[in-house]
Amino acid sequence: VTASTVQNVIEPSGLAEALAALRARTPLVQCLTNIVVAGSTANALLAVGASPAMVDNPEEAGDFSRVADGVLVNLGTPYAVTAEAMEAAALAATAAGTPWVLDPVGAGPLRWRTSLAHRLLEQRPPVVVRGNASEIMALDGGAGGKGVDASDSADQALDAATDLARRGGPTVVAVSGEVDHLTDGDRLVRVANGHPLLTRMTGSGCALGALMAGFAATCEDPLLAATAATATLNVAAQHAADAAHGPGSFAVALLDSLAAVTPEQLAEQVRLS
Amino acid sequence: VTASTVQNVIEPSGLAEALAALRARTPLVQCLTNIVVAGSTANALLAVGASPAMVDNPEEAGDFSRVADGVLVNLGTPYAVTAEAMEAAALAATAAGTPWVLDPVGAGPLRWRTSLAHRLLEQRPPVVVRGNASEIMALDGGAGGKGVDASDSADQALDAATDLARRGGPTVVAVSGEVDHLTDGDRLVRVANGHPLLTRMTGSGCALGALMAGFAATCEDPLLAATAATATLNVAAQHAADAAHGPGSFAVALLDSLAAVTPEQLAEQVRLS
Amino acid sequence: VTASTVQNVIEPSGLAEALAALRARTPLVQCLTNIVVAGSTANALLAVGASPAMVDNPEEAGDFSRVADGVLVNLGTPYAVTAEAMEAAALAATAAGTPWVLDPVGAGPLRWRTSLAHRLLEQRPPVVVRGNASEIMALDGGAGGKGVDASDSADQALDAATDLARRGGPTVVAVSGEVDHLTDGDRLVRVANGHPLLTRMTGSGCALGALMAGFAATCEDPLLAATAATATLNVAAQHAADAAHGPGSFAVALLDSLAAVTPEQLAEQVRLS
Repeated sequence: VTASTVQNVIEPSGLAEALAALRARTPLVQCLTNIVVAGSTANALLAVGASPAMVDNPEEAGDFSRVADGVLVNLGTPYAVTAEAMEAAALAATAAGTPWVLDPVGAGPLRWRTSLAHRLLEQRPPVVVRGNASEIMALDGGAGGKGVDASDSADQALDAATDLARRGGPTVVAVSGEVDHLTDGDRLVRVANGHPLLTRMTGSGCALGALMAGFAATCEDPLLAATAATATLNVAAQHAADAAHGPGSFAVALLDSLAAVTPEQLAEQVRLS
Repeated sequence: VTASTVQNVIEPSGLAEALAALRARTPLVQCLTNIVVAGSTANALLAVGASPAMVDNPEEAGDFSRVADGVLVNLGTPYAVTAEAMEAAALAATAAGTPWVLDPVGAGPLRWRTSLAHRLLEQRPPVVVRGNASEIMALDGGAGGKGVDASDSADQALDAATDLARRGGPTVVAVSGEVDHLTDGDRLVRVANGHPLLTRMTGSGCALGALMAGFAATCEDPLLAATAATATLNVAAQHAADAAHGPGSFAVALLDSLAAVTPEQLAEQVRLS
Repeated sequence: VTASTVQNVIEPSGLAEALAALRARTPLVQCLTNIVVAGSTANALLAVGASPAMVDNPEEAGDFSRVADGVLVNLGTPYAVTAEAMEAAALAATAAGTPWVLDPVGAGPLRWRTSLAHRLLEQRPPVVVRGNASEIMALDGGAGGKGVDASDSADQALDAATDLARRGGPTVVAVSGEVDHLTDGDRLVRVANGHPLLTRMTGSGCALGALMAGFAATCEDPLLAATAATATLNVAAQHAADAAHGPGSFAVALLDSLAAVTPEQLAEQVRLS
């Protein structure tokens, strides 16, 4: 891996502009996601300034992907019927030029959804794949972890991410962890604003995938879009942690902070490297 | 449209009595709703003083509608299997004389659920249909909007609502917006207590539909029931906004306020016209 | 019923040790649960110190039950497809020696899921069955209640619970109520830390079932595990109630308290009899 560093390519001011652009346009983000986080994901999108629409049945998903500004496919609790909708949405989004994001929750140990993830990746490449280290390694052919939480460090998964991006699949691969790593196979960005409370609430990673779909809808460069989503969530999380007494109040404050964080704060407080 | 004004028909004191009656009886409200808001809808019903039961599979939905006091059918994330349950519930509720409420989320641009909504409306009229302007216009045969958020003003949808109510379908049509409009085709009520934060959290409209089913279970006049639900949610929202720092803390405070709002506050603070 | 009292068998210090053991091991708890509480259940598990994984499709549920440390099967919103997954998970868990917990939400008046509950109970006995009085009586062959809320007192259901446990089905039967009753057919434990606000939020009982699966994964004695889960939730609820202004802020504070409650507080504040 010899990806160049971010200093040349992603500037804090660019993240600020991306957040302002998202709020100016209020992108319509179609989410095909899971029963655990559907509500919290919709709330995260609304808080940041996007417009969520959870259209995930096979009768409507493909048609809706043609009018949505961005699409999220999250494999948290797939069923045969929603998997069918996900394939239709990914196909229609790609055909319409709508950016779509794949969040392969649980890829690796869970074989059925891992096959689904591979099928989605190979046939209709998403603009961003976001996962933890285990999931990204599993998508690249590695063994993957035991469960849905990260059990490999983001650093170790970087080779897999770069390989995955270079093989002509997703444009950008984002590996979430204490430090987030994002690469398009050529450029590499690290965002070091992670907060431990993000791992004590369900759905923070899932919300991040949805935010990436929103930013990708209003920002031309997918690497900048994915980085802006990561930075916005993580800077908001740092604000939220100051107001929180535990994981419950943190999740509430995170929504408040996603709505309140300004482009200027984002540029000042993001820790890129 | 020459609907008479509310002054003659709905009084603030009637709303207060409706809230007191709901709390005295704790109606059992069956909800066939979506994966995004199922939890927040149940919490809204519990907070206000009703008893929710989310029975939405085709094996049980119809039987349960016969024992429930009110039924909500919400089209937020319909699937073939839950759509079948919705038809069974609407049929059984109508047969048993149980009031049921239709919330046609996304009607208009999403064709499959729009057909489902029309089928439900034509065969077994609900006591209330609640939607935003786009959805109500779509049900009346209009073109509808682009997504699941309101894109037409409630005012413009009033003709569609009146027409829909007069055609012998639903008894009452409620058009949600900055100012809520409710009509039974003859009488018209406006409730001017909307708050912008209600549009920054997911599920406030869905919760309103559920509250309408609860009020309709304990109040003879459907227009009074739907107005009482609207007023209760919106007055509670105004209380919640005073305690909120953003959309996350607003959603939490809204549940607290739904539990705390008194019939007297409702009568004093509602803005009917 | 001549079950011996708890004084001989469950000590507050044992509950403290069980909580410390759970946090030391972070058990992976597979949840096959309902669309209403999937998010709040995952958050309760994360808050207390366990690791949730919501794997509930028939393609993956059985395989995952072999690697999970504990399994929850909750019948809140079953569909044909998830019911199939529940049977596979219960079978695989039993075969692998993984403790699993059955929460028969709505058993009694809802016939289809009552049959499912009986089938699960008879073929592959869970380590714990948790329900309200109506549900436990229905599982024991009684008539059951009208809805999903408790309508019989926990005390009245004790005979049914003891009978159910003695018939060689579940090892432990837990009857939730103002005072919780737990029995393995021989020993009886009462936990008198219930709080009324637990009945004003959705999912507190469902979270309790999930916590029982987590404790059963890290504690050899199922009666101690189920009692520790009950005590932890209820002591945390008492802390949360002190910080709450209503059901919304209570649910948030409950997650904070589940994360903050110490083994020492648990031993000091639990009211066993």
